Amino acid sequence: MALTDATKPTDVSLNTDLYELTMAQGFWESGLVDAEGCFNVFFREAPFGGGYAVACGMGQIADLVENFVFDDDSIAYLASVQAPSGGPMFKKGFLDYLRDFRMRVSVWAVPEGDLVFPREPMVRVEGPLIDCQLLETALLNLVNFQTLVATKTARVVHAAEGHPVSDFGLRRAQGPDGGLAVARASYIGGASSTSNVLAGKIYGIPVFGTHAHSWVMAFPTELDAFRAFAKSSPKNCVLLLDTYDVHRGIKNAITVAKEMEQAGERLAAIRIDSGDLAKLSKETRAAFDAAGLDYVKISVSNDLDEYTIQSLFAQGAPIDSFGVGTKLATCDPQPSLGGVYKLSATRSSADEPWDPVLKLSEMAYKRTIPGIQHITRFYDEAGCPVGDMIVDDSVRSADGDTNMVDVLDELMTYDMGGYESRELMEQVVEKGERSKEPDTIEQAKARCREAVMRLDPAVRRFLNPQIYPVGLEPGLAKLRSDLTRAERRDSARH
Amino acid sequence: MALTDATKPTDVSLNTDLYELTMAQGFWESGLVDAEGCFNVFFREAPFGGGYAVACGMGQIADLVENFVFDDDSIAYLASVQAPSGGPMFKKGFLDYLRDFRMRVSVWAVPEGDLVFPREPMVRVEGPLIDCQLLETALLNLVNFQTLVATKTARVVHAAEGHPVSDFGLRRAQGPDGGLAVARASYIGGASSTSNVLAGKIYGIPVFGTHAHSWVMAFPTELDAFRAFAKSSPKNCVLLLDTYDVHRGIKNAITVAKEMEQAGERLAAIRIDSGDLAKLSKETRAAFDAAGLDYVKISVSNDLDEYTIQSLFAQGAPIDSFGVGTKLATCDPQPSLGGVYKLSATRSSADEPWDPVLKLSEMAYKRTIPGIQHITRFYDEAGCPVGDMIVDDSVRSADGDTNMVDVLDELMTYDMGGYESRELMEQVVEKGERSKEPDTIEQAKARCREAVMRLDPAVRRFLNPQIYPVGLEPGLAKLRSDLTRAERRDSARH
Repeated sequence: MALTDATKPTDVSLNTDLYELTMAQGFWESGLVDAEGCFNVFFREAPFGGGYAVACGMGQIADLVENFVFDDDSIAYLASVQAPSGGPMFKKGFLDYLRDFRMRVSVWAVPEGDLVFPREPMVRVEGPLIDCQLLETALLNLVNFQTLVATKTARVVHAAEGHPVSDFGLRRAQGPDGGLAVARASYIGGASSTSNVLAGKIYGIPVFGTHAHSWVMAFPTELDAFRAFAKSSPKNCVLLLDTYDVHRGIKNAITVAKEMEQAGERLAAIRIDSGDLAKLSKETRAAFDAAGLDYVKISVSNDLDEYTIQSLFAQGAPIDSFGVGTKLATCDPQPSLGGVYKLSATRSSADEPWDPVLKLSEMAYKRTIPGIQHITRFYDEAGCPVGDMIVDDSVRSADGDTNMVDVLDELMTYDMGGYESRELMEQVVEKGERSKEPDTIEQAKARCREAVMRLDPAVRRFLNPQIYPVGLEPGLAKLRSDLTRAERRDSARH
Repeated sequence: MALTDATKPTDVSLNTDLYELTMAQGFWESGLVDAEGCFNVFFREAPFGGGYAVACGMGQIADLVENFVFDDDSIAYLASVQAPSGGPMFKKGFLDYLRDFRMRVSVWAVPEGDLVFPREPMVRVEGPLIDCQLLETALLNLVNFQTLVATKTARVVHAAEGHPVSDFGLRRAQGPDGGLAVARASYIGGASSTSNVLAGKIYGIPVFGTHAHSWVMAFPTELDAFRAFAKSSPKNCVLLLDTYDVHRGIKNAITVAKEMEQAGERLAAIRIDSGDLAKLSKETRAAFDAAGLDYVKISVSNDLDEYTIQSLFAQGAPIDSFGVGTKLATCDPQPSLGGVYKLSATRSSADEPWDPVLKLSEMAYKRTIPGIQHITRFYDEAGCPVGDMIVDDSVRSADGDTNMVDVLDELMTYDMGGYESRELMEQVVEKGERSKEPDTIEQAKARCREAVMRLDPAVRRFLNPQIYPVGLEPGLAKLRSDLTRAERRDSARH
């Protein structure tokens, strides 16, 4: 592709911020080649002012880890990079080290398509500090955006009340990979199809399309254009009504639909791409029904999102399907999840016990959570999730205290006693090799549908959603408080 | 890469919306294989509420056109696609046609890095309708996002008043291609460097980086961490102060800077990534100056954009450089340019004269401009642009009328008589082959710097910028009025 013909799969190792490589060199030079870290990917606020996110991108983590090598080209480039004040940025010994480098990390992740909430680990990476740093940027690049798109799509699909939603966003995406990520994540998030043909080929996602205004303009009259399209695509015929005037478009489409009936075919649908979609869809429905064409479906597009779709249905618009492009591909109005990758424990080698660490901040809400974290999700009798507890088994309170401590407010607790629970995260990589076959995207899609359906409607709603309880297991809450106090004392002394 | 290892350069032809292929099949089946169209890429409003955009992505159009082939894999996939109501979507004859397909289009574009304004053609494509449609999505995918990023960066760089800005956005981009596009376009738009190592390798952009909070947390104390980093990166040493407490960070960094002086090295800079950057940068500057370390620069990051940077300088913050990530890579708060690709003329074959067409809309501002358009840009004596005239030579008014007609308001004219002028667009592809070597990105970057510098400050400002005059040559304005009236009459009759 224009943007990728200069790249190859092994370039994944350079798909990173420079500082990951200078830090890796620093660890190597400081004799910390075997020192280990535990990092967590998490976000601090659910996107779009909502109450949840849909974990996505996890099915590709094992590919990323297994393909992470530095080929000769990459080494030659790194050898050429100059430090700002002169001389090579990277030492020959370190480049030799990279030449033989293979990822040794182990990775746990929330299953793709399941729900995830602020501050809990979506992905946990354990392994040598060097490996963990080198993986950071590519991993964030993989899961940040796809989680955002899957979440946006779940919202749009929820607003669409069971009517199909198709991803039309490729032309507004960030290059070919952006388009592929949009198609993959939106399908997992609930879209029925995509306009992106390459995504159809690579991921097996159903592809969908109609025709453009230019098709109509390329013929002497709109009627000629509709007839030609019906002739060429009789089994896939969706006519676009708004090139010149929707009311004329309706008449011409009805004429062609009747001609198709004569030929034993059926006009599948019409599409409206501009104007007042509520008003025009009603007028279109009435005209087609009056003509005995009640089987012809109405599809709409034009800068749609969850709010416009909700509004259309609130106005009683008889719409059967939606093409959602720009606002899906760009996740308007919040184009970034803000997912981060933070260190929560270190040890001098794989044989030593973990030493939990945390990062303070002037802003209390940026204080991190220490330890080797996993998530226990609790469910009520109906199988609906009621709260998530972040747990570090090494500090779990001995008395089996079930009062988890709110992740932001240490004075608030939730009693999770009596609920069913299960472990949410699963291991996807074991010491650099995939430890399970990734789910298919159909499995991830089904998991998402089920999870969104079972989520408390109060958490799912768009406006002022209720906060889903996320807390720390009491032993982990104590560890965090103790470390915070010790760190602040230490800071005051210096 | 995780996202691209399944793709190859020839997949560019499938990096498209399905309807481009079904329309191409329709033209092929309707006997319109030689019928030609002229399409224009344009946007309707300058992004970010601003007064201009920076054209970007144009240097890659010729690659896109020349690589546009359907290989055996692609044909096999297309043969497998089923129509919604059964049977194959594509006919064998059409797939045979695609197998031998080579793009025959000619393309003109605004030079990369130059300024472009609403409604004027950034790119013009002429050629067979089939080719023009097949190119649409990939072309928009290429220029929409890069133009947006280059524009955002030009704004950020303008706010930074000559201080270096580095692209830190990879982790929030839409996959590897998104990150590459961000790095390339932000460099053209004025960034000095990128953190994206792969972009350094592929485009030769200078790479820049510091270290992360995790580096500090991986050592027993912050001082240990700073010493280890200074030892490993003495020629590239930027210390991050805010892992625990910035004031402690300042003390530790000063200690290490003094130790570096002893060793004949110099601490290059410090970075602050959280908290009140105005206050903290002043305190940091004062402490380093008092310690005789006035050569140590101050770099900041943390959700920056043009507005926060302006605010920091308005507060007198002594900041030397900026790392701008999320809001650059996602073009927050407007993640899409909204660039479209509209047909403006057709002809039955390359030997016939062009027949101008336009698309009406319920919304007047969506009415397109007909004809084979190019842009004449006018300049005052100082070489500053004063207005752009969209021209179709075939309808140019015979009397050399210099009163161009505003592109939105037909009752407003601008007299461009007496100004110097030059043609803005240049041909980049001639019948499917590149017609010139693309500019280097350094040339595009220099062009952007020059163009932004010469732009009227009233148009360049962020708040309520003055509208830069864009008008139609009087003959083209008349053509557009005539076609609009004829189309409306026709619509009223039906």
